[in-house]
Amino acid sequence: MKLSALSLAAALMAAPQVAAFAPAAKPAFATSLSSATATEFDLNEYLLSKKGPIEKALEESVDSNCPETKKICESMLYSLMAGGKRIRPVVCLAACEMFDGSDEKAMPAAVALEMIHTMSLIHDDLPSMDNDDLRRGKPTNHVIYGEDVAILSGDALLSESFKHVALNTKGVDPQRVLDVVVRLGRSVGPNGLAGGQVMDLECEAKEGVTLEELTWIHTHKTATLLQVAVASGAILGGATPEEVAACEKFALNIGLAFQVADDILDVTASTEDLGKTAGKDEDTDKTTYPKLLGLQESKDEARRLIDEAKASLEQFGDRAAPLLAIADYIVDRKN
Amino acid sequence: MKLSALSLAAALMAAPQVAAFAPAAKPAFATSLSSATATEFDLNEYLLSKKGPIEKALEESVDSNCPETKKICESMLYSLMAGGKRIRPVVCLAACEMFDGSDEKAMPAAVALEMIHTMSLIHDDLPSMDNDDLRRGKPTNHVIYGEDVAILSGDALLSESFKHVALNTKGVDPQRVLDVVVRLGRSVGPNGLAGGQVMDLECEAKEGVTLEELTWIHTHKTATLLQVAVASGAILGGATPEEVAACEKFALNIGLAFQVADDILDVTASTEDLGKTAGKDEDTDKTTYPKLLGLQESKDEARRLIDEAKASLEQFGDRAAPLLAIADYIVDRKN
Repeated sequence: MKLSALSLAAALMAAPQVAAFAPAAKPAFATSLSSATATEFDLNEYLLSKKGPIEKALEESVDSNCPETKKICESMLYSLMAGGKRIRPVVCLAACEMFDGSDEKAMPAAVALEMIHTMSLIHDDLPSMDNDDLRRGKPTNHVIYGEDVAILSGDALLSESFKHVALNTKGVDPQRVLDVVVRLGRSVGPNGLAGGQVMDLECEAKEGVTLEELTWIHTHKTATLLQVAVASGAILGGATPEEVAACEKFALNIGLAFQVADDILDVTASTEDLGKTAGKDEDTDKTTYPKLLGLQESKDEARRLIDEAKASLEQFGDRAAPLLAIADYIVDRKN
Repeated sequence: MKLSALSLAAALMAAPQVAAFAPAAKPAFATSLSSATATEFDLNEYLLSKKGPIEKALEESVDSNCPETKKICESMLYSLMAGGKRIRPVVCLAACEMFDGSDEKAMPAAVALEMIHTMSLIHDDLPSMDNDDLRRGKPTNHVIYGEDVAILSGDALLSESFKHVALNTKGVDPQRVLDVVVRLGRSVGPNGLAGGQVMDLECEAKEGVTLEELTWIHTHKTATLLQVAVASGAILGGATPEEVAACEKFALNIGLAFQVADDILDVTASTEDLGKTAGKDEDTDKTTYPKLLGLQESKDEARRLIDEAKASLEQFGDRAAPLLAIADYIVDRKN
């Protein structure tokens, strides 16, 4: 049964305890890699099986050890535990698994990725940036804790992410862990999130943004971190450089598709479904894929990117089933 | 000759090219470790010998590789290359040298430390934080580039610092590099810069801040990063855990002394000497060491901390001369 994005979203909102929500047992992997396979693979069950451990690891990653750090830890956890799809941790674990690596090996990197993603959300929502009061249906960090603490909590999450992965990754060659640190570091710098965001701000101020510029922005704002998520999982699972490169190609394409889908959802979905203000792009006259390509062509582009992504993983056969199913989910989701 | 802090400051402001400023050759290390030794050691010459390579490594650490990243790299470099005493890089190199490690081994960590320090200055100066327009005699980052770009440049510097150290540290056991990553990561989190800053903000809003609270704040806002600087240098130089612990004790004490000296300078120095607004603590009714202890007792406390710091390095004999001289400089400086 192909999951509807709606039932998947419901599953992802479920409490961290997985057992009560798990459907009847199914084989973890489908048996063939035909186009039907990703459909047969039970992504819902797979995601539920990862959700509990990921939420637990995230919660344990920030721990106030004295009264003086209570407030900053509370602010960090407020945003870190505010729900969300946990797509970056999931694809990191799935990529590690594709190379027969255990979840245990990749979980610290998975947590680090979500810390970095959360930092970027906290800082993006600030009044001097996107000025958003609502995120995942809740008041944004600075609305609750003030701008100053929100900035510092983002800094702390970013910094702790590196500590977390370097300190807690066990049973992996240290040189591979350093490789993950390098990639995580790059994902926020000029050729990552922050670079993409600055270019985005520059383009907001000008007329006639091109498709190339929009693609550069989304590659760096969104795709890079997903790319690092999949590559890190692969590296920690023991992949060769060539295998890591194939994974990166996959992730770059699903990352771009993710952003095209986001732009489409901003036009087509309700604020209630999104958990954030819908129609904001049009209100702020922002350049989006639907604006440059039209809605239908944007949908076609997202599908094309996903098909290209999936082709990169053909060499891994059935072991790629979770990542292939996630790729489909990214363009079919409702929020 | 004991250097006056003024001539030292002048030396530190000198151009990166060292040769033209180098005084007549002196032995790199004094021959005994009596209290007179740190005085005999030519700190001016030592600092000048490090300044060129540090400035060069900092400049090369941020490099825009495409037109899209030009603006964020410019903003990052604006603050990174705005001068400053480079104390953290210098103590990192000096600690590495104390264990016969080359500057080459510790330089990536030295650069990472200055990137982190610069990030903290950019974010601290923001309107929602200390709201400072002037830093090192120049307009602060957000005055030039806007709040949004300043926040993102800080994020990029923080993130790139980890990439830089993990990617560029050569000839060192990877497990030691990971240890440095862990310490750098911790230095900005709840038990580091960000935690100290949040506690500082909380204390600004209340009456009757205690000496214990003030010490906690300064330990985390200031001393922790210096501690990581010295510990990282020692680790990269090949120190044993016990030797690293002795270095950390030294650095914690000089870090606290550094902050006490900063509080004293805010009262006694001019805005011109400081390169930032003097008298600001009193204007903003901030709790400082001079306010809690009085000016003379604060000076005595700074000296006591420095003496205690220096005692931690006795075991290293003459090899500790640069760090001992830096300790003295910290309480004697004029800005």
